[in-house]
Amino acid sequence: MNRYAMQHIVDSSYCYPVSEHEIVLRLRTAKDDIVSARVIYESKYAIGARQLMQPMKKCYSTELYDFFEIKLALEDTRLAYVFSVSDDGEKFYFFSEDGITEDYDFTLGFYNFFQYPYINRADILPPVTWMDEAVFYQIFVDRFCMGDKAKDTSYINCEWGDVPTPKTFAGGDIKGILQNLDYIKGLGCNAIYLTPVFTSISNHKYDISDYYRVDPQFGSNEDLKKLVQECHSRGMRIVLDAVFNHCSERIMQFQDVLEKGKKSEYFDWFVIDGDRVNEAKDNYETFAACDYMPKFNTSNPKVQQFLIDIAVFYIREYDIDGWRLDVSDEISHDFWRTFRKAVKQAKADAVIIGENWHDASNYLRGDQYDSIMNYAFTKACLDYFAWGKKNAQEFAWKLNDILMRNTETVNRMMLNLLDSHDTHRFFKETGSNRLRTKAALTLLYLFDGAPCIFYGTELLIYGGYDPDCRRCMDWSLTGEDGPYGDVYRLLTKLSEIRIEEHVASGKNRIFSENDVFILENTYGDRVLRLMVNLTDRERKTEFGTLKANSFGVSMNGGFVIYEEE
Amino acid sequence: MNRYAMQHIVDSSYCYPVSEHEIVLRLRTAKDDIVSARVIYESKYAIGARQLMQPMKKCYSTELYDFFEIKLALEDTRLAYVFSVSDDGEKFYFFSEDGITEDYDFTLGFYNFFQYPYINRADILPPVTWMDEAVFYQIFVDRFCMGDKAKDTSYINCEWGDVPTPKTFAGGDIKGILQNLDYIKGLGCNAIYLTPVFTSISNHKYDISDYYRVDPQFGSNEDLKKLVQECHSRGMRIVLDAVFNHCSERIMQFQDVLEKGKKSEYFDWFVIDGDRVNEAKDNYETFAACDYMPKFNTSNPKVQQFLIDIAVFYIREYDIDGWRLDVSDEISHDFWRTFRKAVKQAKADAVIIGENWHDASNYLRGDQYDSIMNYAFTKACLDYFAWGKKNAQEFAWKLNDILMRNTETVNRMMLNLLDSHDTHRFFKETGSNRLRTKAALTLLYLFDGAPCIFYGTELLIYGGYDPDCRRCMDWSLTGEDGPYGDVYRLLTKLSEIRIEEHVASGKNRIFSENDVFILENTYGDRVLRLMVNLTDRERKTEFGTLKANSFGVSMNGGFVIYEEE
Repeated sequence: MNRYAMQHIVDSSYCYPVSEHEIVLRLRTAKDDIVSARVIYESKYAIGARQLMQPMKKCYSTELYDFFEIKLALEDTRLAYVFSVSDDGEKFYFFSEDGITEDYDFTLGFYNFFQYPYINRADILPPVTWMDEAVFYQIFVDRFCMGDKAKDTSYINCEWGDVPTPKTFAGGDIKGILQNLDYIKGLGCNAIYLTPVFTSISNHKYDISDYYRVDPQFGSNEDLKKLVQECHSRGMRIVLDAVFNHCSERIMQFQDVLEKGKKSEYFDWFVIDGDRVNEAKDNYETFAACDYMPKFNTSNPKVQQFLIDIAVFYIREYDIDGWRLDVSDEISHDFWRTFRKAVKQAKADAVIIGENWHDASNYLRGDQYDSIMNYAFTKACLDYFAWGKKNAQEFAWKLNDILMRNTETVNRMMLNLLDSHDTHRFFKETGSNRLRTKAALTLLYLFDGAPCIFYGTELLIYGGYDPDCRRCMDWSLTGEDGPYGDVYRLLTKLSEIRIEEHVASGKNRIFSENDVFILENTYGDRVLRLMVNLTDRERKTEFGTLKANSFGVSMNGGFVIYEEE
Repeated sequence: MNRYAMQHIVDSSYCYPVSEHEIVLRLRTAKDDIVSARVIYESKYAIGARQLMQPMKKCYSTELYDFFEIKLALEDTRLAYVFSVSDDGEKFYFFSEDGITEDYDFTLGFYNFFQYPYINRADILPPVTWMDEAVFYQIFVDRFCMGDKAKDTSYINCEWGDVPTPKTFAGGDIKGILQNLDYIKGLGCNAIYLTPVFTSISNHKYDISDYYRVDPQFGSNEDLKKLVQECHSRGMRIVLDAVFNHCSERIMQFQDVLEKGKKSEYFDWFVIDGDRVNEAKDNYETFAACDYMPKFNTSNPKVQQFLIDIAVFYIREYDIDGWRLDVSDEISHDFWRTFRKAVKQAKADAVIIGENWHDASNYLRGDQYDSIMNYAFTKACLDYFAWGKKNAQEFAWKLNDILMRNTETVNRMMLNLLDSHDTHRFFKETGSNRLRTKAALTLLYLFDGAPCIFYGTELLIYGGYDPDCRRCMDWSLTGEDGPYGDVYRLLTKLSEIRIEEHVASGKNRIFSENDVFILENTYGDRVLRLMVNLTDRERKTEFGTLKANSFGVSMNGGFVIYEEE
């Protein structure tokens, strides 16, 4: 038995309540090591005298590990448990806080059993249930559509469609989005994630100087309010970008500090080394090394209040459906806890999506965010579909590994993406391979969590790293009958399957067979199966044969989606 | 290389800042597997272009694992890093969020390096520095000393010294403690942990009916205030018991609910299934299964305020030095976060000590408690010193395992104990073995964290499980010249060493050699070494030879403590 691999962590993604009488337990073991895993449990005050036992099921396998899982229904809310494992099906060992042992004395268990001491409702993360059916469309406003023909266009410094530079303004605005809401909905998207729209001198607007005013380039506050209303009237939701880590140097508060130094009432709103900002502008904390983006001192209660007031304002006054949190991992846990309480009080099902590129489990315990932008998923997809750095087996292992970072509750709220305004376009990374891009998109809609399509993906917009990934939409190419009609049809079909087949409520099993990647989604009797063969050979699996470079989604024995090169 | 064992978890005891420019990193590997471990790091915005490297040191070994550690001094507060490890000293592998790899592309590191994104001051746990020199004495008031000869003694239902029963009242009180503060201080203790003193019909007073009134059996509120003052005038601190999970059914609020059911304004203060408490008194949540101890609904903001007001009241009005939290693991994280903020605002260096018998790392991240009662340490000591279930090597491994659960900041604030009002007396468990008890006490004073002596340990009070462990002090046996003078002298000597030699600021290394347990505490040039031989044979080590059944503490080459059977 491989004792090194065996792991269980209480009160984590290995052990979390989903209701006051249900708890999920996971046990990590070395791959192909344990043939039988069981949990022995009872109320923690009873386990010394009597124990119950249930078998666990192997649900996930990574490169190194298997994960066994069980959802226990409890009578008492105070759970004590140990695991019983065997690598030959005959001799069983105990696994407790003290590790693997041949014997276990339940009468002394209070020293070293695992326990979830009491399921308090306050410790259960309530899911944002609309995320189950959400399909996001991310819009970088300046490049999506210019809808306001009457506005002052003097700021526009390129032709629509020019390859973008960091300083390019193309003219996209909120009216342009309003005019295309039906287009977005037609694509099967029912939620919008909008990059920032507040006053800022940049095209991306991540350096905000007035959080209460929509940038005139993009329109008016009334336009934003109307956008939310028009979304809602179509059954669509909208999430804005909370740029709370830093602001623009042009914000009134920083300008006051520039002028008055330590005498400014806003001096402590920022993190400044010395009595004033020096001439070199290098003695205060910023975003990255950008002196024009001073970092907020989010430990200052006044700053906390300022930012949280903004978050609550757009929920209460505009009725937005959530916030995406820019550079969220550079802000303290304490801030996000306060933020969450205020946001959830204003709107219980507002979604909170952090921008953490790395393992964010410490932010996803129920007290901070609901979800993150799932860049670990992005990277895994790049490795398999685009770069060929992982084969089907390694890719399946990696996806299981990503799922095991968090609870299923959180996984169902993840914002999964292939690309964004901060990455290369996925299509470019595949070497403009249409089949591979479409296969990846198909996975995106079936993996645990909500898909998020970066605007223009439906047109296979090409582009490298920022700013190149932010090219303009070419509206002449859209539509079912246009040159990208196949992508359009795929996305609408995927959206339909995702919602009508209750994919999010299904249980995914992800594995590979004969170098074919397989995701199997089971919901009741219905089994839906994505199979991907990226090799140059026909491949057989127990679920059918796939031609070289092909993928398909089968349901009830037949393909509902199938593509080959 | 054993890849199964390798582990690093960001923003945990594996990775935690101790100041805005210092961070501790730990890497777990299989034991005796890795011969060289290094960290490769830089600011996360720079690491794609350049990297720094530092060697790590193997500091802890458990049964299965080695832990390498380094404290990095940072220029930037945004750390990105990967590890570089070798099992032969020649070929090095990378270890990142993606696991072990032969190559690592730093230009794509933003997808999978480890990172501490930004050290916010709010995320650094500030230590309660007085815990470094604290030596606690835990007092179960009814059995310690009766000091008030004038009080109404009609409640006393046994002779002082009778073997206790659950319903025995022996008469101990706060005046009795006041009269013996110099005794306690003489023993080398400079902090008191007092079990509950508020109004309650039980002898233990864990079922409180009035949190604002000291129980008349124990004295008056003035007595309590005087006790705090007298402690402080002697340089001693005092921590009270916060029984916030549950109360007595006699509390006014529950009585009101009993009378009025759902119409009571306090109905939501408890967790009741139905419209009123039923006759069987089995339809509401309680502590364990005790219907006379209803559990508070700590999710109710009014209950939160009620309890937190109590916590703050005794700090502001009585100046107590902290709270020990009864049954703390059955209360939500959310409650303890709110509690911590209020307590620390009232007194920044008030200590918060949870009663969690199991791994409590999720409560010890800086947002909830400072510390817990370290029952995992208790159990390990029982296994080695009392029950012979672990040998010296296994015991050393287990202590290292316990240390690796938490950050060093937390470990230094742990409340370490051999026994308490909730366990058998340690001396009994050793089979009344004086040497083994004294060896364990010696370790208690040298291990990371603050020692806590249960009253009467200095008299080797005998006793089984509750209520037997709560026997009366026999004051005729106290003193340096009494039958337990050897224990008294050992404790005073240990306390002196602990403080004068800055043991808490030293770094411990815990290991074994030839079945001798060794704890080595290094502070600057000073090396202090506890060696314990519990075997029936003389044992040689590189630090000297120990007779059968002996232990000693050496410093500067000579024994400052030595005992043999």
